[in-house]
Amino acid sequence: MSDAMAGKTAGSYKFGVKALFFDVFGTLVDWRTGVAREAETHLKPRGYTLDWLAFADAWRAEYQPSMEQVRSGQVSYAKLDILHRKSLDLVLPRFNVRDLPEDVAHSLNLAWHRLDGWPDLRPAFIRLEQRFLMAPVSNGNIALMVDLARRNTVHFDAILGADIAGDFKPKPQVFLAAAEAIGLAPSACMMVFAASHTTDAIGAAACGLRTASIARPDEFGMGKSATVCEVPVDVAAQDLNDLADKLGA
Amino acid sequence: MSDAMAGKTAGSYKFGVKALFFDVFGTLVDWRTGVAREAETHLKPRGYTLDWLAFADAWRAEYQPSMEQVRSGQVSYAKLDILHRKSLDLVLPRFNVRDLPEDVAHSLNLAWHRLDGWPDLRPAFIRLEQRFLMAPVSNGNIALMVDLARRNTVHFDAILGADIAGDFKPKPQVFLAAAEAIGLAPSACMMVFAASHTTDAIGAAACGLRTASIARPDEFGMGKSATVCEVPVDVAAQDLNDLADKLGA
Repeated sequence: MSDAMAGKTAGSYKFGVKALFFDVFGTLVDWRTGVAREAETHLKPRGYTLDWLAFADAWRAEYQPSMEQVRSGQVSYAKLDILHRKSLDLVLPRFNVRDLPEDVAHSLNLAWHRLDGWPDLRPAFIRLEQRFLMAPVSNGNIALMVDLARRNTVHFDAILGADIAGDFKPKPQVFLAAAEAIGLAPSACMMVFAASHTTDAIGAAACGLRTASIARPDEFGMGKSATVCEVPVDVAAQDLNDLADKLGA
Repeated sequence: MSDAMAGKTAGSYKFGVKALFFDVFGTLVDWRTGVAREAETHLKPRGYTLDWLAFADAWRAEYQPSMEQVRSGQVSYAKLDILHRKSLDLVLPRFNVRDLPEDVAHSLNLAWHRLDGWPDLRPAFIRLEQRFLMAPVSNGNIALMVDLARRNTVHFDAILGADIAGDFKPKPQVFLAAAEAIGLAPSACMMVFAASHTTDAIGAAACGLRTASIARPDEFGMGKSATVCEVPVDVAAQDLNDLADKLGA
Protein backbone atom coordinates (compact mmCIF):
# COMPACT_ATOMS: atom_id res chain seq x y z
CA MET A 1 0.00 0.00 0.00
CA SER A 2 1.44 3.30 -1.02
CA ASP A 3 0.44 5.55 1.77
CA ALA A 4 1.83 9.04 1.20
CA MET A 5 -0.07 9.53 -2.06
CA ALA A 6 -3.17 7.65 -1.04
CA GLY A 7 -4.80 10.59 0.66
CA LYS A 8 -4.21 12.76 -2.35
CA THR A 9 -5.40 10.38 -5.01
CA ALA A 10 -7.79 7.79 -3.62
CA GLY A 11 -11.02 8.09 -5.53
CA SER A 12 -10.06 11.49 -6.86
CA TYR A 13 -8.85 10.49 -10.29
CA LYS A 14 -10.25 8.57 -13.14
CA PHE A 15 -10.20 4.81 -12.87
CA GLY A 16 -8.80 4.95 -9.30
CA VAL A 17 -5.29 5.10 -10.76
CA LYS A 18 -2.56 5.93 -8.23
CA ALA A 19 0.61 5.08 -10.18
CA LEU A 20 1.63 5.65 -13.77
CA PHE A 21 4.03 3.11 -15.25
CA PHE A 22 5.85 4.27 -18.35
CA ASP A 23 7.29 2.46 -21.27
CA VAL A 24 10.37 4.50 -22.13
CA PHE A 25 11.94 3.84 -25.56
CA GLY A 26 9.62 5.48 -28.07
CA THR A 27 7.07 6.50 -25.46
CA LEU A 28 9.10 8.98 -23.38
CA VAL A 29 12.30 9.31 -25.42
CA ASP A 30 13.10 9.39 -29.13
CA TRP A 31 15.53 6.51 -29.49
CA ARG A 32 15.82 6.67 -33.29
CA THR A 33 17.28 10.12 -33.83
CA GLY A 34 19.27 9.84 -30.59
CA VAL A 35 20.96 6.59 -31.52
CA ALA A 36 21.59 7.92 -35.06
CA ARG A 37 23.24 11.03 -33.59
CA GLU A 38 25.40 9.00 -31.21
CA ALA A 39 26.45 6.64 -34.00
CA GLU A 40 27.51 9.60 -36.10
CA THR A 41 29.35 11.17 -33.15
CA HIS A 42 31.29 7.97 -32.52
CA LEU A 43 31.89 6.69 -36.04
CA LYS A 44 32.19 9.72 -38.32
CA PRO A 45 35.49 10.87 -36.74
CA ARG A 46 36.82 7.40 -37.56
CA GLY A 47 36.05 7.91 -41.26
CA TYR A 48 32.73 6.10 -41.52
CA THR A 49 29.78 7.53 -43.39
CA LEU A 50 26.70 5.41 -42.81
CA ASP A 51 23.00 5.96 -43.20
CA TRP A 52 22.82 6.81 -39.50
CA LEU A 53 19.07 6.36 -39.19
CA ALA A 54 19.27 3.00 -40.95
CA PHE A 55 21.96 2.02 -38.47
CA ALA A 56 19.69 3.00 -35.57
CA ASP A 57 16.84 0.98 -37.08
CA ALA A 58 19.08 -2.04 -37.61
CA TRP A 59 20.33 -1.93 -34.02
CA ARG A 60 16.80 -1.57 -32.70
CA ALA A 61 15.67 -4.47 -34.91
CA GLU A 62 17.81 -6.78 -32.78
CA TYR A 63 16.02 -5.63 -29.61
CA GLN A 64 13.08 -8.03 -29.57
CA PRO A 65 15.07 -11.08 -30.73
CA SER A 66 17.71 -10.46 -28.05
CA MET A 67 15.08 -10.28 -25.30
CA GLU A 68 13.18 -13.25 -26.69
CA GLN A 69 16.10 -15.49 -25.84
CA VAL A 70 15.65 -14.50 -22.20
CA ARG A 71 11.86 -14.60 -22.25
CA SER A 72 11.89 -18.09 -23.72
CA GLY A 73 14.33 -19.31 -21.09
CA GLN A 74 17.15 -20.06 -23.58
CA VAL A 75 19.52 -17.72 -21.75
CA SER A 76 19.36 -16.28 -18.25
CA TYR A 77 18.39 -12.68 -17.60
CA ALA A 78 20.93 -10.06 -18.59
CA LYS A 79 20.58 -6.30 -18.41
CA LEU A 80 19.57 -4.47 -21.55
CA ASP A 81 23.01 -2.78 -21.62
CA ILE A 82 24.48 -6.24 -22.18
CA LEU A 83 21.92 -7.23 -24.80
CA HIS A 84 22.47 -3.90 -26.57
CA ARG A 85 26.16 -4.62 -26.74
CA LYS A 86 25.64 -8.09 -28.21
CA SER A 87 23.31 -6.58 -30.80
CA LEU A 88 25.78 -3.80 -31.57
CA ASP A 89 28.49 -6.37 -32.23
CA LEU A 90 26.13 -8.12 -34.66
CA VAL A 91 25.10 -4.96 -36.48
CA LEU A 92 28.39 -3.10 -36.87
CA PRO A 93 29.88 -5.57 -39.39
CA ARG A 94 26.74 -5.36 -41.53
CA PHE A 95 27.56 -1.68 -41.98
CA ASN A 96 31.18 -2.60 -42.65
CA VAL A 97 32.36 -1.19 -39.34
CA ARG A 98 35.05 -3.53 -38.07
CA ASP A 99 37.77 -3.47 -35.43
CA LEU A 100 36.27 -0.62 -33.48
CA PRO A 101 38.42 0.00 -30.38
CA GLU A 102 36.80 -1.35 -27.23
CA ASP A 103 36.48 2.05 -25.57
CA VAL A 104 34.66 3.45 -28.61
CA ALA A 105 32.33 0.45 -28.84
CA HIS A 106 31.63 0.70 -25.09
CA SER A 107 30.84 4.39 -25.35
CA LEU A 108 28.68 3.88 -28.45
CA ASN A 109 26.75 1.18 -26.59
CA LEU A 110 25.81 3.82 -24.02
CA ALA A 111 24.03 5.77 -26.78
CA TRP A 112 20.83 4.46 -25.21
CA HIS A 113 21.71 6.34 -22.00
CA ARG A 114 21.88 9.63 -23.93
CA LEU A 115 18.48 9.85 -25.57
CA ASP A 116 16.35 12.97 -25.49
CA GLY A 117 12.74 13.05 -24.40
CA TRP A 118 9.93 14.02 -26.74
CA PRO A 119 9.15 17.73 -26.23
CA ASP A 120 6.09 17.08 -24.06
CA LEU A 121 7.98 14.89 -21.57
CA ARG A 122 9.15 17.44 -19.05
CA PRO A 123 6.13 19.77 -18.85
CA ALA A 124 3.76 16.81 -18.65
CA PHE A 125 5.79 15.09 -15.93
CA ILE A 126 5.70 18.23 -13.80
CA ARG A 127 1.90 18.01 -13.92
CA LEU A 128 1.53 14.25 -13.62
CA GLU A 129 3.95 13.83 -10.70
CA GLN A 130 1.76 16.07 -8.54
CA ARG A 131 -1.00 13.49 -8.72
CA PHE A 132 0.54 10.11 -9.40
CA LEU A 133 3.41 7.92 -8.36
CA MET A 134 5.67 7.74 -11.41
CA ALA A 135 7.87 4.85 -12.46
CA PRO A 136 9.36 3.53 -15.66
CA VAL A 137 8.34 -0.05 -16.38
CA SER A 138 10.77 -0.50 -19.21
CA ASN A 139 12.93 -3.30 -20.49
CA GLY A 140 15.87 -0.98 -19.86
CA ASN A 141 18.01 -1.59 -16.79
CA ILE A 142 18.09 0.62 -13.71
CA ALA A 143 21.31 2.49 -14.58
CA LEU A 144 19.98 3.23 -18.05
CA MET A 145 16.74 4.66 -16.65
CA VAL A 146 18.65 6.70 -14.06
CA ASP A 147 20.77 8.27 -16.78
CA LEU A 148 17.79 9.05 -19.03
CA ALA A 149 15.93 10.70 -16.15
CA ARG A 150 18.98 12.80 -15.22
CA ARG A 151 19.63 13.81 -18.82
CA ASN A 152 16.02 14.91 -19.32
CA THR A 153 15.58 16.43 -15.83
CA VAL A 154 12.60 14.36 -14.84
CA HIS A 155 12.00 12.51 -11.59
CA PHE A 156 10.71 9.03 -11.01
CA ASP A 157 9.57 7.75 -7.61
CA ALA A 158 11.22 4.41 -8.29
CA ILE A 159 12.80 2.57 -11.19
CA LEU A 160 10.75 -0.54 -11.86
CA GLY A 161 10.72 -2.85 -14.87
CA ALA A 162 13.01 -5.58 -16.18
CA ASP A 163 15.75 -5.38 -13.54
CA ILE A 164 13.18 -5.72 -10.75
CA ALA A 165 11.43 -8.66 -12.38
CA GLY A 166 14.47 -10.42 -13.85
CA ASP A 167 12.63 -10.80 -17.16
CA PHE A 168 11.39 -8.66 -20.04
CA LYS A 169 8.00 -7.29 -21.03
CA PRO A 170 5.52 -8.42 -22.09
CA LYS A 171 6.01 -11.31 -19.65
CA PRO A 172 3.29 -10.86 -16.98
CA GLN A 173 5.85 -10.99 -14.18
CA VAL A 174 7.27 -7.62 -15.23
CA PHE A 175 3.94 -5.78 -14.87
CA LEU A 176 2.97 -7.66 -11.71
CA ALA A 177 6.36 -7.20 -10.01
CA ALA A 178 6.12 -3.47 -10.65
CA ALA A 179 2.70 -3.18 -9.00
CA GLU A 180 3.84 -5.36 -6.12
CA ALA A 181 7.04 -3.35 -5.59
CA ILE A 182 5.15 -0.09 -5.34
CA GLY A 183 2.58 -1.67 -3.04
CA LEU A 184 -0.49 -1.26 -5.21
CA ALA A 185 -3.05 -3.54 -6.79
CA PRO A 186 -2.53 -3.84 -10.57
CA SER A 187 -5.86 -2.07 -11.08
CA ALA A 188 -4.44 1.04 -9.36
CA CYS A 189 -1.58 1.18 -11.89
CA MET A 190 -1.81 2.49 -15.44
CA MET A 191 0.70 1.42 -18.10
CA VAL A 192 1.50 4.22 -20.55
CA PHE A 193 2.98 3.28 -23.94
CA ALA A 194 3.30 4.48 -27.53
CA ALA A 195 0.20 3.49 -29.48
CA SER A 196 2.11 1.17 -31.78
CA HIS A 197 3.35 -0.90 -28.80
CA THR A 198 0.55 -3.44 -28.92
CA THR A 199 2.37 -5.92 -26.68
CA ASP A 200 2.45 -3.42 -23.80
CA ALA A 201 -1.27 -2.84 -24.24
CA ILE A 202 -2.13 -6.53 -24.27
CA GLY A 203 0.38 -7.54 -21.59
CA ALA A 204 -0.59 -4.85 -19.10
CA ALA A 205 -4.32 -5.32 -19.56
CA ALA A 206 -4.00 -9.08 -19.12
CA CYS A 207 -2.39 -8.41 -15.71
CA GLY A 208 -5.24 -6.13 -14.66
CA LEU A 209 -3.47 -2.80 -15.15
CA ARG A 210 -5.16 0.19 -16.73
CA THR A 211 -3.77 1.23 -20.11
CA ALA A 212 -3.02 4.52 -21.86
CA SER A 213 -1.63 4.97 -25.36
CA ILE A 214 0.33 7.98 -26.59
CA ALA A 215 0.24 8.66 -30.35
CA ARG A 216 4.00 9.08 -31.09
CA PRO A 217 3.73 9.14 -34.88
CA ASP A 218 7.47 9.66 -35.35
CA GLU A 219 9.00 6.83 -33.32
CA PHE A 220 10.05 4.86 -36.41
CA GLY A 221 10.47 7.89 -38.67
CA MET A 222 8.35 10.87 -39.55
CA GLY A 223 4.68 9.85 -39.42
CA LYS A 224 5.41 6.15 -39.85
CA SER A 225 4.02 4.78 -36.59
CA ALA A 226 0.45 3.82 -35.82
CA THR A 227 -1.12 6.53 -33.68
CA VAL A 228 -4.09 4.44 -32.61
CA CYS A 229 -3.55 1.26 -30.65
CA GLU A 230 -4.74 -1.96 -32.29
CA VAL A 231 -6.44 -3.06 -29.10
CA PRO A 232 -8.77 -1.12 -26.79
CA VAL A 233 -7.14 1.11 -24.16
CA ASP A 234 -8.57 3.00 -21.21
CA VAL A 235 -7.13 6.32 -22.41
CA ALA A 236 -5.91 7.19 -25.91
CA ALA A 237 -3.86 10.40 -25.72
CA GLN A 238 -2.16 12.50 -28.35
CA ASP A 239 0.81 13.20 -26.10
CA LEU A 240 1.67 13.25 -22.38
CA ASN A 241 0.04 16.64 -21.86
CA ASP A 242 -3.14 15.25 -23.34
CA LEU A 243 -2.81 12.30 -20.96
CA ALA A 244 -2.51 14.73 -18.05
CA ASP A 245 -5.64 16.52 -19.27
CA LYS A 246 -7.55 13.27 -19.61
CA LEU A 247 -6.51 12.06 -16.14
CA GLY A 248 -7.46 15.37 -14.54
CA ALA A 249 -3.88 16.12 -13.49
CA MET B 1 28.38 2.53 -16.05
CA SER B 2 26.30 5.49 -15.12
CA ASP B 3 26.83 7.84 -17.96
CA ALA B 4 24.82 11.02 -17.49
CA MET B 5 26.55 11.95 -14.26
CA ALA B 6 29.96 10.67 -15.23
CA GLY B 7 30.99 13.80 -17.02
CA LYS B 8 30.01 15.92 -14.07
CA THR B 9 31.62 13.90 -11.36
CA ALA B 10 34.46 11.77 -12.68
CA GLY B 11 37.57 12.71 -10.77
CA SER B 12 36.00 15.92 -9.54
CA TYR B 13 35.01 14.79 -6.08
CA LYS B 14 36.74 13.27 -3.19
CA PHE B 15 37.45 9.56 -3.37
CA GLY B 16 36.02 9.34 -6.93
CA VAL B 17 32.56 8.84 -5.47
CA LYS B 18 29.72 9.07 -8.01
CA ALA B 19 26.79 7.69 -6.03
CA LEU B 20 25.66 8.15 -2.46
CA PHE B 21 23.79 5.24 -0.90
CA PHE B 22 21.77 6.12 2.18
CA ASP B 23 20.69 4.15 5.15
CA VAL B 24 17.26 5.59 5.96
CA PHE B 25 15.85 4.73 9.41
CA GLY B 26 17.79 6.85 11.87
CA THR B 27 20.12 8.28 9.22
CA LEU B 28 17.65 10.26 7.08
CA VAL B 29 14.45 10.03 9.11
CA ASP B 30 13.63 10.07 12.82
CA TRP B 31 11.79 6.78 13.29
CA ARG B 32 11.47 7.00 17.07
CA THR B 33 9.38 10.12 17.53
CA GLY B 34 7.48 9.38 14.29
CA VAL B 35 6.45 5.88 15.35
CA ALA B 36 5.57 7.15 18.82
CA ARG B 37 3.36 9.87 17.28
CA GLU B 38 1.64 7.39 14.97
CA ALA B 39 1.05 4.95 17.83
CA GLU B 40 -0.57 7.71 19.86
CA THR B 41 -2.67 8.82 16.88
CA HIS B 42 -3.95 5.30 16.33
CA LEU B 43 -4.32 4.03 19.90
CA LYS B 44 -5.19 6.99 22.10
CA PRO B 45 -8.64 7.45 20.51
CA ARG B 46 -9.31 3.81 21.42
CA GLY B 47 -8.66 4.55 25.10
CA TYR B 48 -5.03 3.42 25.39
CA THR B 49 -2.42 5.44 27.22
CA LEU B 50 1.01 3.95 26.68
CA ASP B 51 4.53 5.19 27.03
CA TRP B 52 4.56 5.97 23.30
CA LEU B 53 8.35 6.24 23.00
CA ALA B 54 8.78 2.97 24.86
CA PHE B 55 6.32 1.41 22.42
CA ALA B 56 8.38 2.71 19.48
CA ASP B 57 11.55 1.34 21.04
CA ALA B 58 9.93 -2.05 21.66
CA TRP B 59 8.70 -2.29 18.07
CA ARG B 60 12.09 -1.30 16.74
CA ALA B 61 13.76 -3.85 19.02
CA GLU B 62 12.08 -6.61 16.96
CA TYR B 63 13.64 -5.22 13.76
CA GLN B 64 16.98 -7.02 13.76
CA PRO B 65 15.60 -10.36 15.04
CA SER B 66 12.90 -10.34 12.33
CA MET B 67 15.47 -9.74 9.57
CA GLU B 68 17.89 -12.24 11.05
CA GLN B 69 15.45 -15.05 10.27
CA VAL B 70 15.72 -14.08 6.60
CA ARG B 71 19.46 -13.45 6.63
CA SER B 72 20.10 -16.83 8.21
CA GLY B 73 17.94 -18.57 5.61
CA GLN B 74 15.32 -19.76 8.15
CA VAL B 75 12.55 -17.97 6.25
CA SER B 76 12.43 -16.63 2.71
CA TYR B 77 12.71 -12.93 1.95
CA ALA B 78 9.70 -10.82 2.89
CA LYS B 79 9.34 -7.07 2.59
CA LEU B 80 9.95 -5.00 5.67
CA ASP B 81 6.26 -4.00 5.70
CA ILE B 82 5.47 -7.65 6.36
CA LEU B 83 8.16 -8.06 9.01
CA HIS B 84 7.00 -4.84 10.69
CA ARG B 85 3.49 -6.26 10.89
CA LYS B 86 4.67 -9.51 12.45
CA SER B 87 6.66 -7.51 14.99
CA LEU B 88 3.70 -5.24 15.70
CA ASP B 89 1.54 -8.26 16.44
CA LEU B 90 4.18 -9.44 18.91
CA VAL B 91 4.59 -6.10 20.64
CA LEU B 92 1.00 -4.89 20.99
CA PRO B 93 0.00 -7.53 23.59
CA ARG B 94 3.04 -6.67 25.70
CA PHE B 95 1.52 -3.20 26.05
CA ASN B 96 -1.87 -4.77 26.76
CA VAL B 97 -3.27 -3.70 23.40
CA ARG B 98 -5.47 -6.57 22.20
CA ASP B 99 -8.15 -7.12 19.58
CA LEU B 100 -7.21 -4.09 17.54
CA PRO B 101 -9.44 -3.96 14.43
CA GLU B 102 -7.57 -5.07 11.32
CA ASP B 103 -7.90 -1.71 9.56
CA VAL B 104 -6.39 0.10 12.56
CA ALA B 105 -3.53 -2.40 12.86
CA HIS B 106 -2.87 -2.13 9.11
CA SER B 107 -2.80 1.65 9.25
CA LEU B 108 -0.59 1.65 12.35
CA ASN B 109 1.82 -0.69 10.58
CA LEU B 110 2.24 2.00 7.92
CA ALA B 111 3.61 4.35 10.61
CA TRP B 112 7.01 3.63 9.07
CA HIS B 113 5.80 5.22 5.81
CA ARG B 114 4.99 8.46 7.63
CA LEU B 115 8.28 9.38 9.26
CA ASP B 116 9.77 12.84 9.09
CA GLY B 117 13.30 13.60 7.99
CA TRP B 118 15.87 15.13 10.29
CA PRO B 119 15.93 18.91 9.68
CA ASP B 120 19.06 18.80 7.52
CA LEU B 121 17.63 16.22 5.10
CA ARG B 122 16.00 18.42 2.49
CA PRO B 123 18.52 21.28 2.23
CA ALA B 124 21.42 18.83 2.10
CA PHE B 125 19.75 16.66 -0.55
CA ILE B 126 19.25 19.70 -2.77
CA ARG B 127 23.02 20.22 -2.65
CA LEU B 128 24.11 16.60 -2.85
CA GLU B 129 21.82 15.63 -5.74
CA GLN B 130 23.54 18.19 -7.96
CA ARG B 131 26.75 16.20 -7.72
CA PHE B 132 25.90 12.60 -6.95
CA LEU B 133 23.48 9.87 -7.92
CA MET B 134 21.30 9.35 -4.87
CA ALA B 135 19.69 6.13 -3.73
CA PRO B 136 18.47 4.64 -0.48
CA VAL B 137 20.16 1.34 0.33
CA SER B 138 17.84 0.52 3.18
CA ASN B 139 16.26 -2.60 4.55
CA GLY B 140 12.92 -0.92 3.86
CA ASN B 141 10.95 -2.02 0.82
CA ILE B 142 10.46 0.05 -2.32
CA ALA B 143 6.94 1.28 -1.51
CA LEU B 144 8.10 2.35 1.95
CA MET B 145 11.01 4.35 0.50
CA VAL B 146 8.75 5.92 -2.14
CA ASP B 147 6.37 7.13 0.53
CA LEU B 148 9.14 8.53 2.75
CA ALA B 149 10.65 10.43 -0.18
CA ARG B 150 7.27 11.89 -1.17
CA ARG B 151 6.43 12.84 2.41
CA ASN B 152 9.75 14.62 2.88
CA THR B 153 9.89 16.10 -0.65
CA VAL B 154 13.22 14.61 -1.59
CA HIS B 155 14.17 12.81 -4.79
CA PHE B 156 16.11 9.63 -5.30
CA ASP B 157 17.47 8.51 -8.64
CA ALA B 158 16.50 4.93 -7.88
CA ILE B 159 15.28 2.91 -4.91
CA LEU B 160 17.90 0.27 -4.17
CA GLY B 161 18.36 -1.91 -1.10
CA ALA B 162 16.64 -4.98 0.31
CA ASP B 163 13.91 -5.40 -2.33
CA ILE B 164 16.51 -5.33 -5.12
CA ALA B 165 18.76 -7.82 -3.40
CA GLY B 166 16.13 -10.10 -1.87
CA ASP B 167 17.99 -10.00 1.43
CA PHE B 168 18.80 -7.60 4.24
CA LYS B 169 21.86 -5.56 5.19
CA PRO B 170 24.52 -6.17 6.27
CA LYS B 171 24.59 -9.16 3.91
CA PRO B 172 27.17 -8.28 1.22
CA GLN B 173 24.70 -8.98 -1.57
CA VAL B 174 22.66 -5.91 -0.61
CA PHE B 175 25.57 -3.48 -1.03
CA LEU B 176 26.88 -5.23 -4.13
CA ALA B 177 23.49 -5.48 -5.83
CA ALA B 178 23.00 -1.75 -5.30
CA ALA B 179 26.31 -0.86 -6.98
CA GLU B 180 25.62 -3.30 -9.78
CA ALA B 181 22.09 -1.96 -10.37
CA ILE B 182 23.33 1.60 -10.71
CA GLY B 183 26.14 0.47 -12.97
CA LEU B 184 29.08 1.53 -10.82
CA ALA B 185 32.03 -0.16 -9.19
CA PRO B 186 31.56 -0.46 -5.41
CA SER B 187 34.49 1.94 -4.95
CA ALA B 188 32.51 4.67 -6.76
CA CYS B 189 29.68 4.33 -4.23
CA MET B 190 29.62 5.75 -0.71
CA MET B 191 27.37 4.29 1.98
CA VAL B 192 26.05 6.97 4.36
CA PHE B 193 24.76 5.86 7.77
CA ALA B 194 24.18 7.06 11.33
CA ALA B 195 27.43 6.77 13.29
CA SER B 196 25.99 4.18 15.67
CA HIS B 197 25.17 1.82 12.77
CA THR B 198 28.39 -0.13 12.93
CA THR B 199 27.09 -2.98 10.77
CA ASP B 200 26.54 -0.62 7.82
CA ALA B 201 30.09 0.68 8.23
CA ILE B 202 31.64 -2.78 8.37
CA GLY B 203 29.38 -4.33 5.72
CA ALA B 204 29.81 -1.57 3.15
CA ALA B 205 33.57 -1.30 3.62
CA ALA B 206 33.97 -5.07 3.28
CA CYS B 207 32.29 -4.83 -0.13
CA GLY B 208 34.64 -2.06 -1.25
CA LEU B 209 32.27 0.87 -0.85
CA ARG B 210 33.34 4.18 0.63
CA THR B 211 31.78 5.03 3.98
CA ALA B 212 30.41 8.15 5.65
CA SER B 213 28.95 8.43 9.13
CA ILE B 214 26.46 11.05 10.30
CA ALA B 215 26.40 11.85 14.02
CA ARG B 216 22.64 11.56 14.76
CA PRO B 217 22.88 11.77 18.56
CA ASP B 218 19.09 11.58 19.02
CA GLU B 219 18.13 8.45 17.08
CA PHE B 220 17.46 6.42 20.23
CA GLY B 221 16.48 9.37 22.42
CA MET B 222 17.99 12.73 23.20
CA GLY B 223 21.76 12.42 23.07
CA LYS B 224 21.77 8.66 23.62
CA SER B 225 23.41 7.49 20.39
CA ALA B 226 27.08 7.20 19.62
CA THR B 227 28.11 10.10 17.40
CA VAL B 228 31.43 8.60 16.40
CA CYS B 229 31.53 5.32 14.52
CA GLU B 230 33.29 2.45 16.26
CA VAL B 231 35.19 1.59 13.08
CA PRO B 232 37.13 3.88 10.72
CA VAL B 233 35.10 5.66 8.04
CA ASP B 234 36.15 7.73 5.03
CA VAL B 235 34.11 10.74 6.15
CA ALA B 236 32.73 11.46 9.62
CA ALA B 237 30.12 14.21 9.33
CA GLN B 238 28.02 16.02 11.91
CA ASP B 239 24.99 16.05 9.65
CA LEU B 240 24.14 15.84 5.95
CA ASN B 241 25.09 19.47 5.32
CA ASP B 242 28.48 18.77 6.82
CA LEU B 243 28.72 15.72 4.53
CA ALA B 244 27.96 17.98 1.56
CA ASP B 245 30.69 20.37 2.72
CA LYS B 246 33.18 17.57 3.14
CA LEU B 247 32.41 16.08 -0.28
CA GLY B 248 32.70 19.45 -1.97
CA ALA B 249 29.04 19.48 -3.05
